Amino acid sequence: MTSEFFSVRTVAEARTGFAPARRSAREQCALADALDRVTAAPIPSPHDLPGFARSAVDGYAVRAADTFGASSSLPVPLHVRGEVAMGTAPTVAVEAGEAVAIPTGGALPTGADAIVMVEHTTPSMRDTVDVLGAVAPGEGVVRADEDVVIGAELAPKGESLRPAQLGLLASAGVTSIAVFARPRVAILSTGNEVVPPATAQLELGEVRDATAGALAGLVRRAGGTPELCGIAADDSARVREELRAAMAWADIVVVSAGSSVGTRDLTAVVVESLGAPGICCHGLAIKPGKPTLLAECDGVPIVGLPGNPVSAIVVFSLIGVPLIQLVGGNERPAAPPTATAALARDVPSAAGRLDVVQVRLVDDQAEPLFAKSSALSVLARSDGQIQVPEDASGLYTGAAVTVELHA
Amino acid sequence: MTSEFFSVRTVAEARTGFAPARRSAREQCALADALDRVTAAPIPSPHDLPGFARSAVDGYAVRAADTFGASSSLPVPLHVRGEVAMGTAPTVAVEAGEAVAIPTGGALPTGADAIVMVEHTTPSMRDTVDVLGAVAPGEGVVRADEDVVIGAELAPKGESLRPAQLGLLASAGVTSIAVFARPRVAILSTGNEVVPPATAQLELGEVRDATAGALAGLVRRAGGTPELCGIAADDSARVREELRAAMAWADIVVVSAGSSVGTRDLTAVVVESLGAPGICCHGLAIKPGKPTLLAECDGVPIVGLPGNPVSAIVVFSLIGVPLIQLVGGNERPAAPPTATAALARDVPSAAGRLDVVQVRLVDDQAEPLFAKSSALSVLARSDGQIQVPEDASGLYTGAAVTVELHA
Repeated sequence: MTSEFFSVRTVAEARTGFAPARRSAREQCALADALDRVTAAPIPSPHDLPGFARSAVDGYAVRAADTFGASSSLPVPLHVRGEVAMGTAPTVAVEAGEAVAIPTGGALPTGADAIVMVEHTTPSMRDTVDVLGAVAPGEGVVRADEDVVIGAELAPKGESLRPAQLGLLASAGVTSIAVFARPRVAILSTGNEVVPPATAQLELGEVRDATAGALAGLVRRAGGTPELCGIAADDSARVREELRAAMAWADIVVVSAGSSVGTRDLTAVVVESLGAPGICCHGLAIKPGKPTLLAECDGVPIVGLPGNPVSAIVVFSLIGVPLIQLVGGNERPAAPPTATAALARDVPSAAGRLDVVQVRLVDDQAEPLFAKSSALSVLARSDGQIQVPEDASGLYTGAAVTVELHA
Repeated sequence: MTSEFFSVRTVAEARTGFAPARRSAREQCALADALDRVTAAPIPSPHDLPGFARSAVDGYAVRAADTFGASSSLPVPLHVRGEVAMGTAPTVAVEAGEAVAIPTGGALPTGADAIVMVEHTTPSMRDTVDVLGAVAPGEGVVRADEDVVIGAELAPKGESLRPAQLGLLASAGVTSIAVFARPRVAILSTGNEVVPPATAQLELGEVRDATAGALAGLVRRAGGTPELCGIAADDSARVREELRAAMAWADIVVVSAGSSVGTRDLTAVVVESLGAPGICCHGLAIKPGKPTLLAECDGVPIVGLPGNPVSAIVVFSLIGVPLIQLVGGNERPAAPPTATAALARDVPSAAGRLDVVQVRLVDDQAEPLFAKSSALSVLARSDGQIQVPEDASGLYTGAAVTVELHA
């Protein structure tokens, strides 16, 4: 064991102090598959948008100067030369004293510099329209580069693409995008007592692997691709072999520990034996979840999680999720959704560690769900969790708390 | 046109008033693929959990009565009969005056009814441990049904499964789940001016289809499967044919309209001609997005959206997303994430309609992004949107607003 072995960190220290350089590979992605993918480079617009001067309203394309002085008492009659059809180039130009009917989105005809809304006109004699109010040059017109100028950034680097951005990219004709590959996250379960979820009948002392599937869900939510590596017995040679194998292909390796006395530090022992250049922390000042290990081994971030499923899931939501986002190139991940509520009961806590307490929201109240840390059912039915900071020795009934929602 | 043609509704009326009975089909889903899938029935636990009485701590399994009166000044010596190994049935029982070493999670040996934490013991002579404090019956023990009683609900019907719930289902051995199929959402674009996003060079007057891809993203976010049906010209016979074809297989049909004068009501005309039993609304009191149509046709909900991409996306986020969740059986969809901020500038608004304004969050301030409604770039770079209610004629600088985040 090295001196780092006992380095207990706060969650905030671990989140800022553990910043591996690893980034997932770059790849091209079709626009149709780009939702929630992270851009690997800024995307400049190959075109002006909308690309041509078009009408913002239904009305008549005119020369603005022709309308000066027009009012409902003194309308200006203009000769209607024709109309613009959607999706095609105008076939007529607007000369002095003329107008061309134009729909919203229609291309501005040559000669026109403004649009009079149809509501501000009345039909007059055949082929003539009376303009009831003046328009300024540019009025009612969307300029060719008004939405986006050619070369302007449609999306910055390091951003997870949202539906509206997909729309903008489509309108600019960008249909292939350089993105970070989804980080491949190896999930290795360990523990002599742990058996696959599909095990119909347990032998006394066995438990089904609850952690791996829950972690896989969190990995997907964070933008990664989970790969379950199965269950290894509490044996350092076996765990070492599995870890080595996973490090060959994974961007991040997650090990959920066995929970028995002798095997609890197995991950640390194995990681040490691999000659890890940096164990960032072994021990987080958090409840539940203290026995957490963060290390970097041959450029691969390794997360060692507590054997208890609830502890593993809580720690991974706080530490693993931002790590996946970092490795996946996401520079501005969305903050977890939150709600503000009043605490319905006192929550005792020990100073010096972060306490994560599951709550249920009832009206505007947050009801703490107390239970043994092994109670996965509590985590599954809670609406969210609150954090009691390291410097607090508890929170009192009625306190305003920020609930991180399990969305 | 029927009398319903001009029935303009508020967004709230449309959301409560348009409640089609349609639900997507049921199917079985493997646990590994069940993230964010919606349960089609409550899931009872086939087993007690953890399934056997186990230790909550590292220590010694004892008979509680043997420890009564024990203290650090008057320790009680117990004979250590052996130890419990993880994942296997205990091989020894605890008789009076005896203890068995046990790790956290180990199965409670016959005869024992409590665990003394190792911290409350000192090793004594060979095969003997001194207990330094009394434990009550049940102390340090997780009962066989303490987390979940057999038959109890692991997840209710109509809920989108979260990572922690996947873990709970795994621990109970539930590896196949009855879920609602993802609603199949047909997206039909119309408009003579609309061309596919992959069109490299536009003819004057053409625009690439921005709406379909953005809607597909929103459909995925809502739990549906989008199917793009391509672009139909502004021709009622053609749109009717496409609509009929989509209704044969889709759970929901979405039509984004052309925006030219004559074709703006094409969706309504076509839906009327199909003999729609109920047009819930044609016209929403919202800006942007007024020309929205909601109808039900042969049991298929139909959403007609404005031709303007920004309007279509805003309306679909407010009306289409909850509709997909409804049809997909999701009875408790997560509320969109929100943030509270102070308005950085006045926002004028017309009373009688809901105004949706895009904002950028800078520190705790919401900066309104004003632009022509056609500006997709504004929607793409905004952090969220605020709603100015129907009964307000604007909001003032400094007002506290709830920002729906574009997560």
